[in-house]
Amino acid sequence: MGITAQQINEAHDRIRPYIHRTPIFTCNTIDQLAGASLFFKCENFQKIGAFKIRGGMNAVLSLTPEERSKGIATHSSGNHAQAIAFAARQTGVKAYIVMPDNSPSVKVNAVKGYGAEVHFCAPNQAAREATLQEIVDKTGAAFIHPYNDDRVITGQATAAKELIEDCAALDFILAPVGGGGLLSGTALSAHYFSPSTGVYAGEPEGAADAILSFKSGKIEKAPFVDTIADGLLTTLGDKTLPIIWTYVKDILLVSEDEIKAALKLVYERMKIVVEPSCVVPLAAVLRNPEIFKGKKVGIILSGGNVDLLKLSGWMS
Amino acid sequence: MGITAQQINEAHDRIRPYIHRTPIFTCNTIDQLAGASLFFKCENFQKIGAFKIRGGMNAVLSLTPEERSKGIATHSSGNHAQAIAFAARQTGVKAYIVMPDNSPSVKVNAVKGYGAEVHFCAPNQAAREATLQEIVDKTGAAFIHPYNDDRVITGQATAAKELIEDCAALDFILAPVGGGGLLSGTALSAHYFSPSTGVYAGEPEGAADAILSFKSGKIEKAPFVDTIADGLLTTLGDKTLPIIWTYVKDILLVSEDEIKAALKLVYERMKIVVEPSCVVPLAAVLRNPEIFKGKKVGIILSGGNVDLLKLSGWMS
Repeated sequence: MGITAQQINEAHDRIRPYIHRTPIFTCNTIDQLAGASLFFKCENFQKIGAFKIRGGMNAVLSLTPEERSKGIATHSSGNHAQAIAFAARQTGVKAYIVMPDNSPSVKVNAVKGYGAEVHFCAPNQAAREATLQEIVDKTGAAFIHPYNDDRVITGQATAAKELIEDCAALDFILAPVGGGGLLSGTALSAHYFSPSTGVYAGEPEGAADAILSFKSGKIEKAPFVDTIADGLLTTLGDKTLPIIWTYVKDILLVSEDEIKAALKLVYERMKIVVEPSCVVPLAAVLRNPEIFKGKKVGIILSGGNVDLLKLSGWMS
Repeated sequence: MGITAQQINEAHDRIRPYIHRTPIFTCNTIDQLAGASLFFKCENFQKIGAFKIRGGMNAVLSLTPEERSKGIATHSSGNHAQAIAFAARQTGVKAYIVMPDNSPSVKVNAVKGYGAEVHFCAPNQAAREATLQEIVDKTGAAFIHPYNDDRVITGQATAAKELIEDCAALDFILAPVGGGGLLSGTALSAHYFSPSTGVYAGEPEGAADAILSFKSGKIEKAPFVDTIADGLLTTLGDKTLPIIWTYVKDILLVSEDEIKAALKLVYERMKIVVEPSCVVPLAAVLRNPEIFKGKKVGIILSGGNVDLLKLSGWMS
């Protein structure tokens, strides 16, 4: 049997002391453009600047004392690396993070700043996995996958749970989809805590793997990859796909221009810093008025860790 | 006699239905850097994206019915133009806005979008004032100055009043200083509602007129003007200077590099969009630990209307 409502509740109790209960923002101008009432769950204000700390924290806090003593390991160049490093520090657990040797120094420094041990590898999936396996073999550290892990999915589910608690009677909730950790958690929370709320995902046309997987029922790759939403490049996993397949209504594609327009709207009108992946669901709402018009819609803004030097290029 | 506590309370009651009560944000990382507890009053989330709506709204709502019937007029290329246009639309009053003919079209469109009548003039102070005078002579519209007006100062005072209400026992409050409307209102609210709270201003070295006026007691011009804090270029007025001279502890200068570093901190760590003028007080806190270390400090983040195309240049 899968993840239960009780497990999500327990995860929430477990991680609550370590995370922010992020605020819900609204924006009249964007509501008018969408013809809908939008409620933005601002995980860009979350610890480490993204929802990922929820899953990372829940995974680390779910370890047995023996597992804790051996440490945790993962491979990531992004928010998951920071989440695991931060969670490890909070709990006094040793963390080993495998990062591609072309990772931006700002990200490497952030992970090191949380006290994690960074191991560099060649920038490809095979090298990542081989380096990780070496560390696990040598140290006995527990591997925490960025999304294909029930403890992680259960942690990510708490973002939608809070949104539902703070915002009654939502017709729909949307989340972006990359590996599907946030989306599957969101779908589970809607299913258990607000069954009348439908869940949609937003996905870039330039990384359109989840929509193919959603249709075929097996994990597919994107036909091509070309998007500024660089947090959404991964494929689904065998734990996230079945949940998404069962509980998500549909996956909505958006173009790069639509992502950029949504990004500009959020910066100019909501005055908050978000990463491009984050606004893909808003772009989907604006593109599909036939679904969302007149509805009460929750949107999970997933994170705000963005390279500010790139921002002007996206806004022009 | 000057502006009273009762007048500030009445202004607050008057404008409350039209404005947001903006949130107070905190940030552990910036607190650690400052060695102080900082409480940021987020007027970047205010209607029209800046505190200016408080003064504009109070001025418009203070008009007599006869004045209202003749409309209001001002000259501004910035946030005050939007504030007056917005306040006029909210109250069904006609607004005439004089804008330099080199104003960015986005700003002109915003003002027109609120239904105001825009009159262009040559981009200099004499042309602004002449064009405004023509309109006032012709229409009988009431001129609302951007800062040198008791109704405006009283409205701006409500930002610090809310900060004081939401955040007890502040040792200090800081605001940026341009024409001094926000700073003089802030100083009055601290004086009346939290007399033990000292008020400081932050000012760019590249627009250092207020500090000279503060020392000499008369309105001075900046020795040179060169700053990204383009909301702080105006000199004090004969209504703002006496209040600042009486109730402000000191004006603290900051360099352009310090403004850029503070801007980057706010974007990267607080994940909010602010304009450069807005972070000048934070830069002053970071530069002067001998004043602020270990203290509880309120900072008014004045606005978030920024040209996003320029942002990357400031962050590099």
